[in-house]
Amino acid sequence: MSDLPKTIEINEEGPREGFQIEPGPIPTARKIALVDALSETGLKQIQITSFVNPKRVPGCADAEEVVAGFHPREGVRYTALWLNEKGLERALAHRDRLTIQGSISMCASEPFIQRNQNRSLAENERVQHNQIAIYRENGIPVDRISVMAAFGCNFAGDISVDQVLRTVQSGLDIAAEHGLRIDRVSLADTMAWATPESIKRVVGAVRERWPELRITLHLHDTRGLGIANAYAGLEMGVDSYDAAVAGLGGCPFAGHKGAAGNVCTEDLAFMCEEMGVSTGIDLDRLIEAARLAEEVVGHPLPGTVMKGGTLSRLRARVN
Amino acid sequence: MSDLPKTIEINEEGPREGFQIEPGPIPTARKIALVDALSETGLKQIQITSFVNPKRVPGCADAEEVVAGFHPREGVRYTALWLNEKGLERALAHRDRLTIQGSISMCASEPFIQRNQNRSLAENERVQHNQIAIYRENGIPVDRISVMAAFGCNFAGDISVDQVLRTVQSGLDIAAEHGLRIDRVSLADTMAWATPESIKRVVGAVRERWPELRITLHLHDTRGLGIANAYAGLEMGVDSYDAAVAGLGGCPFAGHKGAAGNVCTEDLAFMCEEMGVSTGIDLDRLIEAARLAEEVVGHPLPGTVMKGGTLSRLRARVN
Repeated sequence: MSDLPKTIEINEEGPREGFQIEPGPIPTARKIALVDALSETGLKQIQITSFVNPKRVPGCADAEEVVAGFHPREGVRYTALWLNEKGLERALAHRDRLTIQGSISMCASEPFIQRNQNRSLAENERVQHNQIAIYRENGIPVDRISVMAAFGCNFAGDISVDQVLRTVQSGLDIAAEHGLRIDRVSLADTMAWATPESIKRVVGAVRERWPELRITLHLHDTRGLGIANAYAGLEMGVDSYDAAVAGLGGCPFAGHKGAAGNVCTEDLAFMCEEMGVSTGIDLDRLIEAARLAEEVVGHPLPGTVMKGGTLSRLRARVN
Repeated sequence: MSDLPKTIEINEEGPREGFQIEPGPIPTARKIALVDALSETGLKQIQITSFVNPKRVPGCADAEEVVAGFHPREGVRYTALWLNEKGLERALAHRDRLTIQGSISMCASEPFIQRNQNRSLAENERVQHNQIAIYRENGIPVDRISVMAAFGCNFAGDISVDQVLRTVQSGLDIAAEHGLRIDRVSLADTMAWATPESIKRVVGAVRERWPELRITLHLHDTRGLGIANAYAGLEMGVDSYDAAVAGLGGCPFAGHKGAAGNVCTEDLAFMCEEMGVSTGIDLDRLIEAARLAEEVVGHPLPGTVMKGGTLSRLRARVN
């Protein structure tokens, strides 16, 4: 048998991923209800909103209200996303309720960062230096590097393992200039190019070069390989995954150009628990939250276990 | 990297799986159009219908017309399903157009075969002896054993590896009494209990005991693990899979108690081709057939790559 990790951490990103893309409008109270339901599932980290330009992302225009309104549960970290200094300022106003963590945000594809953030990779490095300065001024820890497009890019095509290693190295160099100690690297399959084999190649290469770095996988399910890719990650010992309840974050059924959300939290948790990999999650409660997510957005979501059911109930019926 | 097979065979079961469960009615000409479209994809084996009781399965009442009407393509084997002598007789009337293969049909779960076929495992063994006699009278080759519920059962719970081995052995004993040489065993995850790890356990145990037997996996996707399970099969060297175009055969969106169809053919083929495992399939044509399947049944189907798109077009745009 494979030597899978004994336990993994799942970082729930459904509320943030979902509400920023859903056509809505979704009442703020319903968003809060979903965050509160997720708080009761055993998840230890939930990303609840995004402090971004409300004109560009109207689904997150109520970020402040969501943060002010949810009911924090002890032992759960609540996080938010920001893309620039203004967003960070908005997040910092809620340090009492949010865990504010800094990350050095890298990208393995020049054309992607050009299109996505209108800057070159070299310019991005300068931006990251500035960001770190702001983080440090505000006493925000920076202990991780994230790498977008680590497995392929719609605009650059295949991304070589060497390119990923160079990108991580650039992030570590930036960290070193500021005397920062990096514990973790997040490898993002931003545009769903990964296969189980490329997961193994990239994770294996990063692990071999920096065995001290903990790896997080951020996987999208646009081409149906999300769960298989997560399994390949487990086989490589990866014990930290981003995921989205019910597969929130994209909607293959509503014509959003077919882009799907993150790998589905409850499907991932189901697979792990069935294989003896502990997630700390109460699967029945998580499935209730997934059904609530469908109600909140008002259409079917791609999660599978919430439709097919878990095995524990069937086992209980047998015994 | 994993040592995956260089090539695999995919046995397309979408037409049979789909039309027997779809509420329909679907015009016979549309069923034929789908079979003909699948014939152009590079698939080498297509199961096109089921000779079953038309009162119980109205979607297959036009089995004869479908078989008479499709346009066979050279090099493609067309098969059909039957569950009893009467069905076999109907199939035999079309030996000019169908490949008629016998299989020794076993089950790893006593309560499942009781509910599904109203017989005990012991009674099933007698039925199989009778079936073989009929196959031999008609000059039909019998070279395979199939095992239902090989990974778990809604009515028996978990199925032990030993139980699977005993079931395969019983099938081989039956074959031996008739002097039959068995080449292949099909392991079916009939009720979607398998995980990648249990695939490895069961396949590994069968392979170790009977290294000469070729293994086919029949996987359902009810709990979202179908593709991950297929990947685990590839890792174990399994080079033969049943699959259904567009994920036909169940419909999580229409309330069929959440049961999903077989693993989706084009998603499986996409994963394989991206990992360098050759399927012989023209993925673009298969995706066209998957979209036709959605049109034919009149509602969305669970296949993912047909919504998310392949990577070859994106690569072509880059280069």
